[in-house]
Amino acid sequence: MNKPVKAEIISIGTELLRGEIADTNAVYLASQLHLIGIEVQRLTTSGDDIKMLAQVFRQALKRSSVVITTGGLGPTQDDLTREAVAIVLDEKLFMDEELETQLKVTFARMGREMPPSNLQQAMRISSAVSLTNLRGTAPGLWIDKNDKVIIIMPGPPREMLPMWQNEVLPRLKTRFPGGIILARTIKTFAIQEAKVGELIHEFFEVDNPVTGIYTKPDGIQVRLIANGNNALQLLDAAEKKLKENLAPYVWGTDNDTLPGIIGQVLSNRGMSLATMEDFSGGLLGHIITDSDISSQFYRGGIVANSNLTELGLGIPVVLIERNRGTSGEAAEVMALCIKEKLSTDFGLSITGVFQNRELANQSDIVFIGIADASGTKSWQQQFMMNRADSKERAAVAALFRLRQRLIERNLLNYVK
Amino acid sequence: MNKPVKAEIISIGTELLRGEIADTNAVYLASQLHLIGIEVQRLTTSGDDIKMLAQVFRQALKRSSVVITTGGLGPTQDDLTREAVAIVLDEKLFMDEELETQLKVTFARMGREMPPSNLQQAMRISSAVSLTNLRGTAPGLWIDKNDKVIIIMPGPPREMLPMWQNEVLPRLKTRFPGGIILARTIKTFAIQEAKVGELIHEFFEVDNPVTGIYTKPDGIQVRLIANGNNALQLLDAAEKKLKENLAPYVWGTDNDTLPGIIGQVLSNRGMSLATMEDFSGGLLGHIITDSDISSQFYRGGIVANSNLTELGLGIPVVLIERNRGTSGEAAEVMALCIKEKLSTDFGLSITGVFQNRELANQSDIVFIGIADASGTKSWQQQFMMNRADSKERAAVAALFRLRQRLIERNLLNYVK
Repeated sequence: MNKPVKAEIISIGTELLRGEIADTNAVYLASQLHLIGIEVQRLTTSGDDIKMLAQVFRQALKRSSVVITTGGLGPTQDDLTREAVAIVLDEKLFMDEELETQLKVTFARMGREMPPSNLQQAMRISSAVSLTNLRGTAPGLWIDKNDKVIIIMPGPPREMLPMWQNEVLPRLKTRFPGGIILARTIKTFAIQEAKVGELIHEFFEVDNPVTGIYTKPDGIQVRLIANGNNALQLLDAAEKKLKENLAPYVWGTDNDTLPGIIGQVLSNRGMSLATMEDFSGGLLGHIITDSDISSQFYRGGIVANSNLTELGLGIPVVLIERNRGTSGEAAEVMALCIKEKLSTDFGLSITGVFQNRELANQSDIVFIGIADASGTKSWQQQFMMNRADSKERAAVAALFRLRQRLIERNLLNYVK
Repeated sequence: MNKPVKAEIISIGTELLRGEIADTNAVYLASQLHLIGIEVQRLTTSGDDIKMLAQVFRQALKRSSVVITTGGLGPTQDDLTREAVAIVLDEKLFMDEELETQLKVTFARMGREMPPSNLQQAMRISSAVSLTNLRGTAPGLWIDKNDKVIIIMPGPPREMLPMWQNEVLPRLKTRFPGGIILARTIKTFAIQEAKVGELIHEFFEVDNPVTGIYTKPDGIQVRLIANGNNALQLLDAAEKKLKENLAPYVWGTDNDTLPGIIGQVLSNRGMSLATMEDFSGGLLGHIITDSDISSQFYRGGIVANSNLTELGLGIPVVLIERNRGTSGEAAEVMALCIKEKLSTDFGLSITGVFQNRELANQSDIVFIGIADASGTKSWQQQFMMNRADSKERAAVAALFRLRQRLIERNLLNYVK
C-alpha cells in the first residue's frame, strides 16, 4: 500500500467553543475519511475570528494534503470562512454571477425576498469550484491548488451531509483513488464486551482486516476494515469465522436493526405483533414504530404503568398483578393476553421493577415474555444502569428474544 | 471586567480521529469553562503520537493560559499524554510511590491483580499535583507552572466528569477568581425561532446579560448569561421581561422538563393520567415514564397502531376509526375513552397520519386530545420533518397542551 493521504478537519464557529452545540460533523467526516483510506491526523475547532482562522488554515495546509472545513458560510459578518481561505491562498473573492442567480432563485422558491447580506454566499475565489447545497443557501467550495485539496462546507449537518455524499465524496474518490477499503459490522447481543474479546482474540493478531469492538445500546459490535484488491474476500472469510465464534449472539450486520429484521419477516409473511409493557413504558412500541413498515405488522399494545384490572381485558389479572415485575409467568400471561386481545400472531411483553439505586445497589430485574401459536416462553434479564438505559436494554432484549423465537420456528435463518 | 482568561481543550486518541467515538468531553468542558468566564479559543483532537502531541501542547501553551487535555492516560503503550507533557515542560517522569500504593489498593478492591503495564499510571512530573479518579485507575494531573495551568484528565466521560466537578472546577475557580457569571435558560414551545428573535430583539442590544437562542426537541430556548456583582439581579430582571415578551409560549426554566412539571402537579394533588397514542407509537408513554415519579400519577395507556375494535374497550370505535388521524373529534374521543377506561383524572391522546415524503412533500398532520372533568379539547399540529422527529414533536406538543390545560384549571401557575 502507498503511504496514506493525510487530512485535517476544521470546524468553525464560536458557538462550538462555548459548548453550545455538539460538533457532530467532525466525527462523521472522520469516520467517512477513514473508510476511504484517508488518514485524519488532526481535528481543530476555531472561533469566528479571521486571524485565528487564517492561522489554523496555514498550519493545517503545511501538515496535510486534504483540509476540510465546516461552518462559517452563513450570511452574517461573523461568517468568515470564505475570507480566511482567500487570505491564505492569496486570492481575491469575487461575486460569482451564476451563484448569485441561483441564490435569488432559491429565495424566490421559498417565497421570500433575499436579504442583501446573503449576497456574500455567492462569493468565491477563482481557483474554487462551487458545490451544490440541496438544503440551504450557502454553496460549498472545492479547491485543488498547489497539490492541496481544500473542501469548504456549511455547518448545519442537514446541509453538510448531502453535500458530502453527492458532491465531495465522489470527487475525493476520483482525486485519491488509492486501494479498495471496505468495512463490515457484525452485531451481537446478550454477551459482554470482554467475552466478545475472548472469543475473537485471534482476530487481533491480524492486520488485514483490522478488528475493533464497540459497545452500542443494541449490543456489542465488531467492526472489520479490510484493504487491498482482495478486501471483499477477506471480509467475507472473517465474517464467516466471526459468526462461528460468536454464535448464538450474532443478530445482524451493517445497517440491520432488530425491529427492521423482525418487521421484514412478519410483514413478508403477513404475520402480526402486539406488545404489553410496563417497565419500558412505551419504549418498545416506540422503537418498533420508528420503522415505516411497522404499520404492516404492528397492531399496537398496552403500556401498563399501574394495575391492569381497569382495562377490563378479561384476562387472569390476579395472576399478573400478584407477580408482575417478579416472574416470568406474569410476562408470559401478559404476552398471551395481548396476543389474544389484538388477534395477532405474536404477543411480546416486558415487565420489571426499577430498584432505587440510592437506597440499594441492586440490579433492575426484568422479564420478557413471548406468546405465539406454539405456546409461551419467558426470559429473565438484569440491568445495573440508569433508568433510561435500563428501559432501552429491556426493549432491545425483548426484540432480541423475539428474533430468537422466529429462528426457532424456522421463520428466519439463524444468521441473517 | 478584566480581559478573560484564554483556554484550549485537547482531546487525545487515535480512535477519535477515525470517528469511532464521538468526543463528548470537549463540548462539555467548553460549556463549563464558558460559565466560569474562561474563554475557550480552540479545540484540538490529536492522535496517540508523541511528536504530534508535543507539538499540539507547545502551540496551545503559547496561545493560552489554561490547557486542558482528556485521554491518553491508559495503561498501554499508546497512552502518551504524561510523556508528552514531560517533554514539553522539560521535566522527568518518576514513579510516585503514593500513587503506586493507591493503584494497588484499587486493583485489590476490584479483586484483580494489577497488570505491570498499569504501573505507568502512577508516573508524574514533580511540578504536578495528582487528581483523584473515583471511577478508574488513571489519576489526573494539575500543573501550575510558568503562569500556565495544565490539566490532564482521563478520556472516559464517566471518569472525567467527577474528576472535573470534584477536583478541577474548585481549583480553577480559586486560581482564576474573576467575576460572578450566572446563566439562565427560558424554555418555550409552539413558537418559531425567527418569531422568538423578533419578540426579544431588544435583548440583543444589551451586553450583560448576553442572550442566545437555541432550537431543542422540546422547543426554542433562550439562554441568558450575566456577569458582575449584580449578575443575579440582571438575570432576574431579564427573565421577567423575557417571560412578558414571550407569553404564552414559555413553559419552564433551566432544568425543567414538561413531564417533570406535569408530574409534579399531578402527584402533589393525587391526580392521575392515561394516554392513547397512534402516531407516536408509545413515545408519549416512554417520555412520561423516564421520570421516576411517573408511577405516582401515570396509569398507562394504549398504543393503537391498527384499529381499536379488537381491544373491546366498549367505546364508539366507529367514530374514532372513521376519523382517526384526520380530526380533532377522534383525538377527543380517544382521550375520553382512555380516561374512563383507566379511571384517571386526565386522558391525553395523539392521533395522526405520516405522509410519504418521497411521494408528496406534505406535512404530517397530528391531533392532540385532552379529556378531563371539565370536558374535552383538541388541537391540530403540523410537522414537516423526518418520522422520528415528527413523533418527538407530537409527544412534546401533547405534554405542552396538557400543561396549558393544568393552567386553565388553576392547577398550575401561568409561568412556573
